[in-house]
Amino acid sequence: MAGVHKVRPMRTMILAAVSLLGATSLPAKLVTRSVAYEHAGVKLEGYLAYDDARTAGGKLPGVLVVPEWWGLNEFVKERAEALAKLGYIAFATDMYGAGVVTTDARKAGELAGQFYGKPLMAERAQAGLDQLLQTGFVDRARVAAIGFCFGGSTCEALAYSGAPLAGIVSFHGGPVPAPADAAAKTKAKFLICTGAVDPFVKPEALAALTKSLEDAHIDYQVISYAGAVHSFTNPGADRLAKDNGLIGMGYNEAAARRSWRQMQVFFQEIFTGR
Amino acid sequence: MAGVHKVRPMRTMILAAVSLLGATSLPAKLVTRSVAYEHAGVKLEGYLAYDDARTAGGKLPGVLVVPEWWGLNEFVKERAEALAKLGYIAFATDMYGAGVVTTDARKAGELAGQFYGKPLMAERAQAGLDQLLQTGFVDRARVAAIGFCFGGSTCEALAYSGAPLAGIVSFHGGPVPAPADAAAKTKAKFLICTGAVDPFVKPEALAALTKSLEDAHIDYQVISYAGAVHSFTNPGADRLAKDNGLIGMGYNEAAARRSWRQMQVFFQEIFTGR
Repeated sequence: MAGVHKVRPMRTMILAAVSLLGATSLPAKLVTRSVAYEHAGVKLEGYLAYDDARTAGGKLPGVLVVPEWWGLNEFVKERAEALAKLGYIAFATDMYGAGVVTTDARKAGELAGQFYGKPLMAERAQAGLDQLLQTGFVDRARVAAIGFCFGGSTCEALAYSGAPLAGIVSFHGGPVPAPADAAAKTKAKFLICTGAVDPFVKPEALAALTKSLEDAHIDYQVISYAGAVHSFTNPGADRLAKDNGLIGMGYNEAAARRSWRQMQVFFQEIFTGR
Repeated sequence: MAGVHKVRPMRTMILAAVSLLGATSLPAKLVTRSVAYEHAGVKLEGYLAYDDARTAGGKLPGVLVVPEWWGLNEFVKERAEALAKLGYIAFATDMYGAGVVTTDARKAGELAGQFYGKPLMAERAQAGLDQLLQTGFVDRARVAAIGFCFGGSTCEALAYSGAPLAGIVSFHGGPVPAPADAAAKTKAKFLICTGAVDPFVKPEALAALTKSLEDAHIDYQVISYAGAVHSFTNPGADRLAKDNGLIGMGYNEAAARRSWRQMQVFFQEIFTGR
């Protein structure tokens, strides 16, 4: 694969694929590896995850995973692995630079701040999408991007840029309204999963996003979860909030579970038409 | 069954239940019948639907179906039949009186107007719920109510009254905020499916509903569908809108399909915990 500079020790696990009648079982092997690549002079390192047993059967749908503002941390890698177990080729993309991960909100804000409102946001994500597509495992007609917090915003920007995505899912992403040229360029359907009481995603900002999507005739759904604040998908969010003295950020088990399930329903629609 | 005064000719159909391996098939028989009952001196007639092959296997989850402001018309009966095919005991409840159905919006407004803001809304729905429970087919721990337009509002009022519901689903319902005593009485989780550009469900009204639910610690999800106006689930909505000169009411295939699918995901959660 182009851009692979080094290969981490492969982590494998056997998954018992359960048939309904218990008559057969398909051995599955989760393969993960880091992928080094470069964009605009910045050395990046993404994280690829897929199921070796499934890739043998033909091309699979691909999912780009864009991290929270903390960078490509364990939480994001776990999301990529969870997608691989569901049968997708998952690539957790690096927006900041190889190994640039933080738990300091001020630093995270600086890192993410380089991208908002700039073409670089979509361009850097596109570089990751290119890596996903270059694996050779992906059915190019069935590609989506999902993102958390800053990553949700990034998915929206990537979709507006005209990237060949069937859909995007934003989990507690900061809303990025569609620019004037998005109507002609956007191919993706949007699923916006948001905490009902997330102080980082104001109702007015969400309304501005949906109005811009309506105006651009971009297909979307917005799902709002009771009691959920920012970063509701991330089991480590409570700790990160506490350590940074942030109010309105925390894990919400119900919202995490429901949004992950609804993402799968959305994927079923955009990848299979059912 | 208590309250059954007359039985319509049964309508049956054979459904081929498809097993994944095609090795077995379960003959299923859809049974429907009208059910006469009474509440507060008003003679009512609901519509029961279930799958005869499934009821033989034990008690099933039950779903109350509350009509749009038009009354218990064919659209609502079809929804009950669709639920029966999914394996639920469905009872389309009558809010107005036996045979009282209209396609005239002024008349519909008068009929629905008797209930808004009054205890009668929950009480009349409870009378239908009682009929559902009295069939003897229903597992009382697994009961939900769904409603369309006026019926969505009614489901909310029914839940607030303390009815033994695991969940309610409102499809383009007029938001009914939780009253002061709802926190202590409400057992149901809420799924609110709403058209993003429904002029009959104002954003402020929706915000007032969700704030009241947050304050009462009632669990909810709100799903908003791109481009969807009022009555988006009803294939006959365009005609009804045209005939009544109503703007902002119409069928939306994507929103109808998605909300019905998301209802099923919600039922899976509230009925099976998965």
